[in-house]
Amino acid sequence: MPAHTLPSPVRLLATSGPGQPEASPELEQLYRSFERELLVPLWTEIGDLMPVHPKSKATPHLWRWENLVALAGRAGQIVPVGRGGERRALALANPSLGGKPYATPTLWAAIQYLMPGEDAPEHRHSQHAFRFIVEGEGVWTVVNGDSIRMSRGDFLPQSGWNWHSHHNAASAPMAWIDGLDIPFSCYTESQFFEFGRDQVAEAEKAKPERCRSERLWGYPGLRPVAQPEQLTATPLLAYRWANTDRALAEQLALEAEGHPATLSPGHAAVRYTNPTNGRDVLPTIRAEMHRVRAGAQTEVRREVGSSVYQVFDGSGTVTVGARAWMVARGDMFVVPSWVPFSARAEVPASAAGSLDLFRFGDAPIFEALHAQRVRIG
Amino acid sequence: MPAHTLPSPVRLLATSGPGQPEASPELEQLYRSFERELLVPLWTEIGDLMPVHPKSKATPHLWRWENLVALAGRAGQIVPVGRGGERRALALANPSLGGKPYATPTLWAAIQYLMPGEDAPEHRHSQHAFRFIVEGEGVWTVVNGDSIRMSRGDFLPQSGWNWHSHHNAASAPMAWIDGLDIPFSCYTESQFFEFGRDQVAEAEKAKPERCRSERLWGYPGLRPVAQPEQLTATPLLAYRWANTDRALAEQLALEAEGHPATLSPGHAAVRYTNPTNGRDVLPTIRAEMHRVRAGAQTEVRREVGSSVYQVFDGSGTVTVGARAWMVARGDMFVVPSWVPFSARAEVPASAAGSLDLFRFGDAPIFEALHAQRVRIG
Amino acid sequence: MPAHTLPSPVRLLATSGPGQPEASPELEQLYRSFERELLVPLWTEIGDLMPVHPKSKATPHLWRWENLVALAGRAGQIVPVGRGGERRALALANPSLGGKPYATPTLWAAIQYLMPGEDAPEHRHSQHAFRFIVEGEGVWTVVNGDSIRMSRGDFLPQSGWNWHSHHNAASAPMAWIDGLDIPFSCYTESQFFEFGRDQVAEAEKAKPERCRSERLWGYPGLRPVAQPEQLTATPLLAYRWANTDRALAEQLALEAEGHPATLSPGHAAVRYTNPTNGRDVLPTIRAEMHRVRAGAQTEVRREVGSSVYQVFDGSGTVTVGARAWMVARGDMFVVPSWVPFSARAEVPASAAGSLDLFRFGDAPIFEALHAQRVRIG
Amino acid sequence: MPAHTLPSPVRLLATSGPGQPEASPELEQLYRSFERELLVPLWTEIGDLMPVHPKSKATPHLWRWENLVALAGRAGQIVPVGRGGERRALALANPSLGGKPYATPTLWAAIQYLMPGEDAPEHRHSQHAFRFIVEGEGVWTVVNGDSIRMSRGDFLPQSGWNWHSHHNAASAPMAWIDGLDIPFSCYTESQFFEFGRDQVAEAEKAKPERCRSERLWGYPGLRPVAQPEQLTATPLLAYRWANTDRALAEQLALEAEGHPATLSPGHAAVRYTNPTNGRDVLPTIRAEMHRVRAGAQTEVRREVGSSVYQVFDGSGTVTVGARAWMVARGDMFVVPSWVPFSARAEVPASAAGSLDLFRFGDAPIFEALHAQRVRIG
Repeated sequence: MPAHTLPSPVRLLATSGPGQPEASPELEQLYRSFERELLVPLWTEIGDLMPVHPKSKATPHLWRWENLVALAGRAGQIVPVGRGGERRALALANPSLGGKPYATPTLWAAIQYLMPGEDAPEHRHSQHAFRFIVEGEGVWTVVNGDSIRMSRGDFLPQSGWNWHSHHNAASAPMAWIDGLDIPFSCYTESQFFEFGRDQVAEAEKAKPERCRSERLWGYPGLRPVAQPEQLTATPLLAYRWANTDRALAEQLALEAEGHPATLSPGHAAVRYTNPTNGRDVLPTIRAEMHRVRAGAQTEVRREVGSSVYQVFDGSGTVTVGARAWMVARGDMFVVPSWVPFSARAEVPASAAGSLDLFRFGDAPIFEALHAQRVRIG
Repeated sequence: MPAHTLPSPVRLLATSGPGQPEASPELEQLYRSFERELLVPLWTEIGDLMPVHPKSKATPHLWRWENLVALAGRAGQIVPVGRGGERRALALANPSLGGKPYATPTLWAAIQYLMPGEDAPEHRHSQHAFRFIVEGEGVWTVVNGDSIRMSRGDFLPQSGWNWHSHHNAASAPMAWIDGLDIPFSCYTESQFFEFGRDQVAEAEKAKPERCRSERLWGYPGLRPVAQPEQLTATPLLAYRWANTDRALAEQLALEAEGHPATLSPGHAAVRYTNPTNGRDVLPTIRAEMHRVRAGAQTEVRREVGSSVYQVFDGSGTVTVGARAWMVARGDMFVVPSWVPFSARAEVPASAAGSLDLFRFGDAPIFEALHAQRVRIG
Repeated sequence: MPAHTLPSPVRLLATSGPGQPEASPELEQLYRSFERELLVPLWTEIGDLMPVHPKSKATPHLWRWENLVALAGRAGQIVPVGRGGERRALALANPSLGGKPYATPTLWAAIQYLMPGEDAPEHRHSQHAFRFIVEGEGVWTVVNGDSIRMSRGDFLPQSGWNWHSHHNAASAPMAWIDGLDIPFSCYTESQFFEFGRDQVAEAEKAKPERCRSERLWGYPGLRPVAQPEQLTATPLLAYRWANTDRALAEQLALEAEGHPATLSPGHAAVRYTNPTNGRDVLPTIRAEMHRVRAGAQTEVRREVGSSVYQVFDGSGTVTVGARAWMVARGDMFVVPSWVPFSARAEVPASAAGSLDLFRFGDAPIFEALHAQRVRIG
Repeated sequence: MPAHTLPSPVRLLATSGPGQPEASPELEQLYRSFERELLVPLWTEIGDLMPVHPKSKATPHLWRWENLVALAGRAGQIVPVGRGGERRALALANPSLGGKPYATPTLWAAIQYLMPGEDAPEHRHSQHAFRFIVEGEGVWTVVNGDSIRMSRGDFLPQSGWNWHSHHNAASAPMAWIDGLDIPFSCYTESQFFEFGRDQVAEAEKAKPERCRSERLWGYPGLRPVAQPEQLTATPLLAYRWANTDRALAEQLALEAEGHPATLSPGHAAVRYTNPTNGRDVLPTIRAEMHRVRAGAQTEVRREVGSSVYQVFDGSGTVTVGARAWMVARGDMFVVPSWVPFSARAEVPASAAGSLDLFRFGDAPIFEALHAQRVRIG
């Protein structure tokens, strides 16, 4: 076995600058010795390793929904879904993360697509996941035998190590987005995966309006006494749009009546939570729905950690660092760590409109490790 | 100041028995010396102080709703409500707790009664409270300026140190039950109280269908992002019957479909929880609604700590230790610590019926202190 | 069975006063009806039940150590120790708690006494306990087979449901104090008790300098990896005086060097904690050692909940509400809920002296239930 | 701005295999469209992204202490320490992590070196750090003005955002190791950094035997009452070898006496913990000292997450996956995620010896996120 050495692109160079030793043959020889011993000095790297604040490798970027749907639809024509490939999903690849299918360093975001009658086979994995449906209907996700209807505006969390499959029971294709912590679990090397049954059982092809988990857990502030307490991930497998919509509308109504309810004037937001502990819906993923009243603008906010947004409804302008885009239904974009973000809802020509933004991010990781920082303005 | 001595009823007696010293003049003299010094030997008391399991001083007892309502109604005729007396409330006094207004050693349970147009004046206290409505409507409870409708089946938690008053906006009297931890806070000497305004402000005499706290917090698994996290008591001030009823019905339906959902066959139960942490709705009080399917019977259960029940609907037989009663709507009874309890729902002559039991108890105290024990069967 | 009625001493009287109904025959009749139905109105009782702040039933009181030891010694002569009586312990009975062996409403404090060669038999109970040794040596407490030396200044916690016995291996009697939550567990009716072996096994009559739990857990900030995590009660069964003394001395030294370390000038304090979670050493009992520098005085402090103090060393004056006592080694006194307390250390005629006060109280109960309040000054 | 596309090295290829679509011109065209739109299909990547168990990119590797010290010493001759470079530290660069100064994907491990009289300037950063000293003495680390002696076997945690500098007060150079979560905070983009004073203040050049934090917190189970409760990182800034050594020796002695104390026969271990909550000493880093009795062998263990070891004393053989090395004092090696690890202590020719291994790892990250898995054997 050849001796290891540092790869040539990262060879140590004597550089001038504050705190750097003078270039000299001895220094050059020392640096070569470091390389042979697989050592890297801190003094040449500290600026990159320990910046004064996060400087994300990720880039703000926007994907248009029409393009995503068009390409997913073409894949629907020629790429089968089955065991081995597992899912017909197209992941957003941040332009500055080396071609990896990572929307941000920690987050996976993909459009998934099922043709009429298709099944995506059962598996389970330690990665935490969710589905969010911006349009369409007709697919049921089956989690541990519980069939969950997927309709516009619904949020379906899927915590790690639960068996799941998807079944399109409709006569039209359906697309939705998947969010997972795949990049984080790749990076931390903590992934486990297991194949399940190849076919969804006929009995699981029921198409109930409400799934069993909703029937057990879908009531505000009520817990079934027979169920276990303080679960690390939510037992509620569907968060329906009707509730989310009403909660946002009421925040804006309460604000209009003079009561504190919103994050800032015209900016309502709800967070999907685990009803057994009130915390984030998944151990590594925060998910929220934001509504910006027509004509209003959110505060400019930077946070440790990254987010992916999808426009659920309305139109407006979002600003991510130096980039700004006019956005409309389905468009997806990323906000890297510590990059300032704000959104403004367009004033529609006609009746009342607002900008609804679905957001998911990695904040629970930082809060669990006491590393969260937020700066407003 | 005279020297303290032990009161004569508790004078120490030399007794015979296992572990007791022989009676003798010296022993008698020693015991008198203990009394003068305000000392009590463990060896004469240990059986009472440290029994092999709890032997409650409280007695199982039942109060009939018709009697409670009748007496509260007569009080409504001749006892005014106002500052000083504060509330027209009649507390259940357990027959073996010395005439104190304590349903159990830790729990206060009372019927409160307001005549048409009456106001109960504003105050606040460190004791935790709730209201539960077995029948009637027309009263609004105002908590920190938020007017909360009270209707049959609703549960209104009221955590400590919040301003509150009641206003009967209807043309008929209304009765409901109050539950508090008054005996526990008396015993632990931890009570604080403050008077508020004498009159409910006109602006607070609004009669909204939904209160502000419901509009903010009343959605399963959704939290308003602008509100504080992990509150020690629930921010949701009304738990509506429609949700409770549906949750119970679904547990029995899921059981019938073959899925685990109930505590035991035919026995459904939900617990009222704090949505910010998934724990009990109040730091010292657990509140639950139980439904026993017609013809079914609960398991026999003993628990450290005591409970008060009110029959919400249906009829059946409840067994508390050596006592058993046929019960009907509104009847209230107590289950002392470690006394076995079970309930059986009557099979109605006609259509499907079930026995709905509202229950509150002191279990959170024991769970917080790691002293909880439960025995089934 | 005769109908229950309220005992005559607590018969309801029509009284005049704010918020009270006018006396009348109808009112009298109503009150009699309440009694028959075992109901008590809130409006006649609210002042006692819900005072503006705690007004303790307990009285500040002092017991002199010389008296305690003398009476315990006489008991040693004529009262055997054995199965049934279990322990030769004399409990402080607060003068206003009806002759019950309760130092305060929640706390048991007793002097225990063993003659040379005596064994106190093994038992276990759900009540939490500790031993504190103000003088003497020679007894070993055996907890689950682990023999623990008891020496002056040592604190031995004894969490619920562990087998324990005591063995006097010396040629002289030994006295120490026991603290338990007996009154609290009596009141909350949560007690369990089990007899163990009648004799301490010979193998357990070893007299090791350090017990096994110390050898495993007695190192600052180090936990044995093979032991369970996050225990609800401490696994460390002896807190030795040498550590306590040094910690207090260092706080005063740091203060003298200009660093923040003390509660107030000249007032050092350490709390005994559970090393697996950093919280109080027992779920229901807080234990601390305080040192007041000669000539210094503590802040005046009131707290929800009660405490018992024993003077460990030095002399000074303690003030509890309206009472003040000059105290010396071994003296014990109680501080009821919300009664102001302060201590002043005497300036000794000769060299440096300080007042060392051992304290235990019920604060963990209130903190667990979010009911703690403290007022300084 | 040119349109983004995926970098050419990661161009999507139509591959054959389970679950893959048939190669075709249409598929090729589709894949090119994905690239243009910055999309990556899951079906071509799933094996790498979601393996059945972690397959670490990191490689087991060993660095010999003599080499580390020699190179650090040469750096001491020609590389100054000062503002800008900040520290004369040489980081272990795992051979398969692209030349980055990362011992594992999450952990930084470096040898730091100070010449006599040198100061490393003050700074602070959000990254958590510690020092461990395998040999030498004479340097004091100053944390927020508290001077901490560094001696063989001592462990000095340094939680994020505290000011710190180092000062060599001796007449000889000194080397030690630094551990940090730099790679994790780089990856998660959560780093903050601030420069402090360029010189250690003269007053901070005191050389106390015990630092202030030890004087406050260095007693088993005792907390200073005046200090804050439940800190997220340890307030104890030095864990001294004498305690660590004794704790390990006692575990082996207890095992020999027949009591459970060790992880497996002959394998003792202590974990450095935060005394305010009993949890890991730093929010992202676990640190432990292991002792393997001469002739004994640890169980084979795999864990999610990675570790770095340094041999503190003794000699033996360590096996990491397919690699095995004879190791001696100071040698450092890495154990990647889910790679089996075991150690065997050499039987020394002469007297009793044992193998002492200092270990640090990233387990708290996985425990906080409920992603930890361990497999023994």
